[in-house]
Amino acid sequence: MAMPEYPTALGASSPDKITLLGHDLAQDVMGTVSFGELAFWLASQRRPTKGETRVFEAVLAALADHGFTPTAIVTRLTYLSAPDSVQGALAAGLLGGGSRFLGVTEDCGRFLHDVLRGVQLPLDEQGWDALALETVAAQRGARRLVPGLGHHVHKDGDPRTPRLFQIAREEDLFGPHLSLFEAIGRVHPRILGKTLPLNGAGVCGAALADLGLPLELLRGFALLARTAGLIGQLAEELHNPVANDIFLSVDLNNTSVPPDPHLDTGGSHG
Amino acid sequence: MAMPEYPTALGASSPDKITLLGHDLAQDVMGTVSFGELAFWLASQRRPTKGETRVFEAVLAALADHGFTPTAIVTRLTYLSAPDSVQGALAAGLLGGGSRFLGVTEDCGRFLHDVLRGVQLPLDEQGWDALALETVAAQRGARRLVPGLGHHVHKDGDPRTPRLFQIAREEDLFGPHLSLFEAIGRVHPRILGKTLPLNGAGVCGAALADLGLPLELLRGFALLARTAGLIGQLAEELHNPVANDIFLSVDLNNTSVPPDPHLDTGGSHG
Amino acid sequence: MAMPEYPTALGASSPDKITLLGHDLAQDVMGTVSFGELAFWLASQRRPTKGETRVFEAVLAALADHGFTPTAIVTRLTYLSAPDSVQGALAAGLLGGGSRFLGVTEDCGRFLHDVLRGVQLPLDEQGWDALALETVAAQRGARRLVPGLGHHVHKDGDPRTPRLFQIAREEDLFGPHLSLFEAIGRVHPRILGKTLPLNGAGVCGAALADLGLPLELLRGFALLARTAGLIGQLAEELHNPVANDIFLSVDLNNTSVPPDPHLDTGGSHG
Amino acid sequence: MAMPEYPTALGASSPDKITLLGHDLAQDVMGTVSFGELAFWLASQRRPTKGETRVFEAVLAALADHGFTPTAIVTRLTYLSAPDSVQGALAAGLLGGGSRFLGVTEDCGRFLHDVLRGVQLPLDEQGWDALALETVAAQRGARRLVPGLGHHVHKDGDPRTPRLFQIAREEDLFGPHLSLFEAIGRVHPRILGKTLPLNGAGVCGAALADLGLPLELLRGFALLARTAGLIGQLAEELHNPVANDIFLSVDLNNTSVPPDPHLDTGGSHG
Repeated sequence: MAMPEYPTALGASSPDKITLLGHDLAQDVMGTVSFGELAFWLASQRRPTKGETRVFEAVLAALADHGFTPTAIVTRLTYLSAPDSVQGALAAGLLGGGSRFLGVTEDCGRFLHDVLRGVQLPLDEQGWDALALETVAAQRGARRLVPGLGHHVHKDGDPRTPRLFQIAREEDLFGPHLSLFEAIGRVHPRILGKTLPLNGAGVCGAALADLGLPLELLRGFALLARTAGLIGQLAEELHNPVANDIFLSVDLNNTSVPPDPHLDTGGSHG
Repeated sequence: MAMPEYPTALGASSPDKITLLGHDLAQDVMGTVSFGELAFWLASQRRPTKGETRVFEAVLAALADHGFTPTAIVTRLTYLSAPDSVQGALAAGLLGGGSRFLGVTEDCGRFLHDVLRGVQLPLDEQGWDALALETVAAQRGARRLVPGLGHHVHKDGDPRTPRLFQIAREEDLFGPHLSLFEAIGRVHPRILGKTLPLNGAGVCGAALADLGLPLELLRGFALLARTAGLIGQLAEELHNPVANDIFLSVDLNNTSVPPDPHLDTGGSHG
Repeated sequence: MAMPEYPTALGASSPDKITLLGHDLAQDVMGTVSFGELAFWLASQRRPTKGETRVFEAVLAALADHGFTPTAIVTRLTYLSAPDSVQGALAAGLLGGGSRFLGVTEDCGRFLHDVLRGVQLPLDEQGWDALALETVAAQRGARRLVPGLGHHVHKDGDPRTPRLFQIAREEDLFGPHLSLFEAIGRVHPRILGKTLPLNGAGVCGAALADLGLPLELLRGFALLARTAGLIGQLAEELHNPVANDIFLSVDLNNTSVPPDPHLDTGGSHG
Repeated sequence: MAMPEYPTALGASSPDKITLLGHDLAQDVMGTVSFGELAFWLASQRRPTKGETRVFEAVLAALADHGFTPTAIVTRLTYLSAPDSVQGALAAGLLGGGSRFLGVTEDCGRFLHDVLRGVQLPLDEQGWDALALETVAAQRGARRLVPGLGHHVHKDGDPRTPRLFQIAREEDLFGPHLSLFEAIGRVHPRILGKTLPLNGAGVCGAALADLGLPLELLRGFALLARTAGLIGQLAEELHNPVANDIFLSVDLNNTSVPPDPHLDTGGSHG
C-alpha cells in the first residue's frame, strides 16, 4: 500500500509559521477574528460577513445554557465524581446532546431543507403560506410532528423566536428556511386546530440552514454553544456546588424493589 | 413538589450489608457468579442458566476485539493524548460503537424480532425457509439490505456464525431469531442471485434476542464485550506502543489544500 | 517516511479465520473461555488459571454496581436526553470513573505496589505488621491518607473485604499486596488512634495487583465491571424509569440567585 | 430529608421569559453579545470589557485547531464509525484534551499563579527578571520542567506568543502572569544554558490567568476552542474524507506478533 496523503485546509504549521484556512494564524486571525466568526469560518471554510456572524452568534447565545438541563446536571455530577478530568465532565455533558433535547435544531433545519429541495421558492407571504399549509397537512396526514413546533414551557411563544426573526431581517439574512418556518407558525392552526409556539431551538436550525452551514452539523453548533454553557455550569459548581446534594437526593431516596425479570424471546409461541 | 422516591432492584447498601438484585453481594455473588453471568443477570434481572451463560459469553467473545478497528485506534490515540484519564480513553473508544461498526448486532436482532412479531412460528425447516424467503423478498422489494447479511472480509463465511449456531444448539437455545437468521442464510441466493455470508455480528444479535435480552440494549452488550477488548488494546499500547506512529503517519503526510467554501442555502433560487 | 508497521497480538482476521491472542477465535475461544477469563487474558496476554479467574471475577462482581451512584445517575440522564445513543449513555457514565469514586481501586493497588518495590518481602504475619506499621506511620508523617482505608457507609467493616481475602486464600492467590493491605487493617489503630474499615474498592486493587495485572489499568477493570452495572441501570430505566423524575426534582427546585463575579488575577497587588 | 434547593445564576425560564445571568436572553443577549464575550461571562459571571473579550478571543483562536492532532484524528474516526452521533464524535475528540496535549495551557497558568501567590509583585522588568530567575532555578533544582517552555516544532519561537503579548499590551491587560512568563523567556538561558521558545499554549494559560478566569477551568477554555476546531474537522471530513484511509493505513499494516505475557506481582520475591 502506498503511503496515503491527508489533505486539509485547516491548521498547518512549519517551524516559524502557523496557518489556519490559508491565513497566518498569529498575524491575521488572533486579535482580529472573533470566536464566533472563527467557528463559522472553520465549519464552512469561508469567512462570514459581519451580518452572518451576528446571526450565527445570536443562535449560539440562544442555545448556550438553559439552567439545570440533564446535560448540565450530568456535567456537574461527572465533575463531582472525577474532578481530575474537566474534559470528561464536558464530554459527558455533550453526550446528552442527542435526539431529544438538543436534536430539535438539527431536525428542524433538515426538515425545512427537505421541504425546500426542488421546490420553486415562493415570492411573497401568500406563497409561503401556501407551501406551509401543504407542509403541515402532509405531516399531519403521515401522523408526524412538525419539528420545531411546540414547547413544553413557552406555550404562548418562545421569546427567542421573534428576536431571531428580527435579527435575521436586520442583517438581510431572512432566507427560505426562516420564511417557511415563520409561515408554518402563521398557518398551522388552520390544520391542527390549535396554536403552538415556534420554539427557539427550531428557529435556530432554520437560521443556521439559511446561513448555508452544513446540515449534518447543525447539532454540532448547538453543542458548541452548549460547551460554553457547560463551562459556566462547572464554574458555578466550583463556587456554589449542588452536585453532591443532587446525588444524595437520589441516593437517599432510593427504594429497594424486587427484581422484575425481563424475558422476551419474540414471536407468538405455540 | 413532594420528594420523589427512586425504586431500584440493583445495588443497595446498609452499614453492614451490600445487596445486588436482592442477593447478598459478598456471600452469594462474589466468588460464585461469573462475570458474564452477572452481566446477564444485571441486564435481565433474572439469573441465567448455565447454558444461557455459555451462549452469552460466546457472543461476548465473538465481539470483544477485532484488532485495529477505528474504536481501537481511537482508544490508543486518546490515551496517547491524555494518559491521565483511562476512563476517557475507554469512553472515547466506545463512542465509535455506533450504527456503522458495532450497530449490526442491534440492527440484526431488532430486524429479526420485527419480522417475528405477530407471526405464527414455523415448526420445521421448510416453514422457516418460507418465512425467510418472504422476508428477503420484502427487503429487496423495499430496496433495503438484510441486516447481518454480507461481510467485507469473510466473503465465503464468517467462522463465528456456524460456531455460534453450534453452541446454541448444544445448549438447546436455538430459538426463533437464530432459526430465521439461519434460514435467511439458506434461501437468500434464490432472491438475490448471489451467496452472501451471515456475519458474526449479526448472528450475535440473533442469539442475544433468543436469550430474551432487551432489544434496546443489544448494542450495549457489544459495547461491554468491546470494553474488555479496549482494555486489551491499552495494555498492549503500554508495552508495545503504536499510537504515536499512527499520529505521525497522519500528521507528517498532511497536504495543505486551499479552503473549499461550503454554501448551500437550500431551495431552487430564482 | 516509510510506511510504519503496527504489531499486535490481539485480534486478526483473514478471509476464513479470525484469531485472538494467537488462538482460533471461533473454535478455541467461543464457547470455551468465559468472559472474565477472556478479559484477564486480553489485558495480560496470558491465560489465567481457574483460580485467577475466580478472584478476578469476584473483583468485578464487587465493583459492578452500587445503586444510584453519580455514574449511574449520569448514564440514566444521558439516555433520557439522547435515547438514540446507548454508547453515549454508557460512555458518559464511565467518565465519572475518576479519582474520587472509582479511583480507589487504582490508588490502593499502586500505593501498595510502591511500598513493596525494593522491599524484602516479610515471611510471617509479624513481618507484615512491622512493614504495615512503618507504612502507616510514614503516610501519617507526610499528612497523607492511606488509600483504601476508611469508608463513608461501611464504618464497621466493608463486607466485600473479608470475602475477597477468603476467596484469594482459597485459590492460593493471597500475595504480597493483599498481605500488606490486611496488615494495614490490623495495625493502623496503633498509629491513627482509631479503627477504620478496609474498603472493598481498595481490597480489589490489592487483589488485582497480586494477580499481576498492569497497575496503569487497575481503574480500567473497575470500569469494565461498571460497564456491566451501567447496562443494568439502563435496562432498569427502560422498565422502571426514574431519570425524568431526577431531572425535574432539580429543575423545579432551582432558585435564581444573582451572579457572583469571579475575579482573581493573582499575586498580592500593591 | 427536606427537598433541597439548587441555586443558579445561569439560565432560567418562565412561560414568557428566558433569563441568563440575570439578563433577558432574547432582548439583551441575542444579537448584542458576541459568543466569545458570552463564554467569558458565563465562566466568570461578570461581563468582560471589549479589551478582555479581544484577549480572550485571541486565546481561543490560538487554540482552536492545529491540523491532524490526535484529537482531530479521533473525532474523524469516531464519526466514520458512528455517523449517527455527532455528539459522540465531538466528545471523543475532547477526551484527548488531557495532560499531554491541551494540558499545557492549564499547567502553565496554574504554575505561574502558584509562584505569584504571596509574592510582592515586582514593579519593573528588572524585578520580574529576578523573580523569573529564582523560579527557573527552583524548578531546575527540583528537576522539574517549567510548564510552557519549549515546543517540539517551533524551536526558534512560537509565533502566537509575541502576538498575544502584543494584543494584551494593546488592551492594557498585560498582568503579572504574562509578565512573569515573559521574564522566564528572557532569563531561562542563564540557568538552563540553552534558549527555549515560550510556547503558544503556555502563553494562553498566562493570558487567561491575567483575565482572572478560574484556574480550575483553564483547560476548559482550551476545550471550548477545540470544539470549534473539531466541528471544522468534521465539516472537512464530510467533503474531503480521510478517516477511512487512516483506518486502512493502520489495519492493513498490522503485523501479528505472539502474545507477550505481563506478570508483575510486586516486591522482591525470594
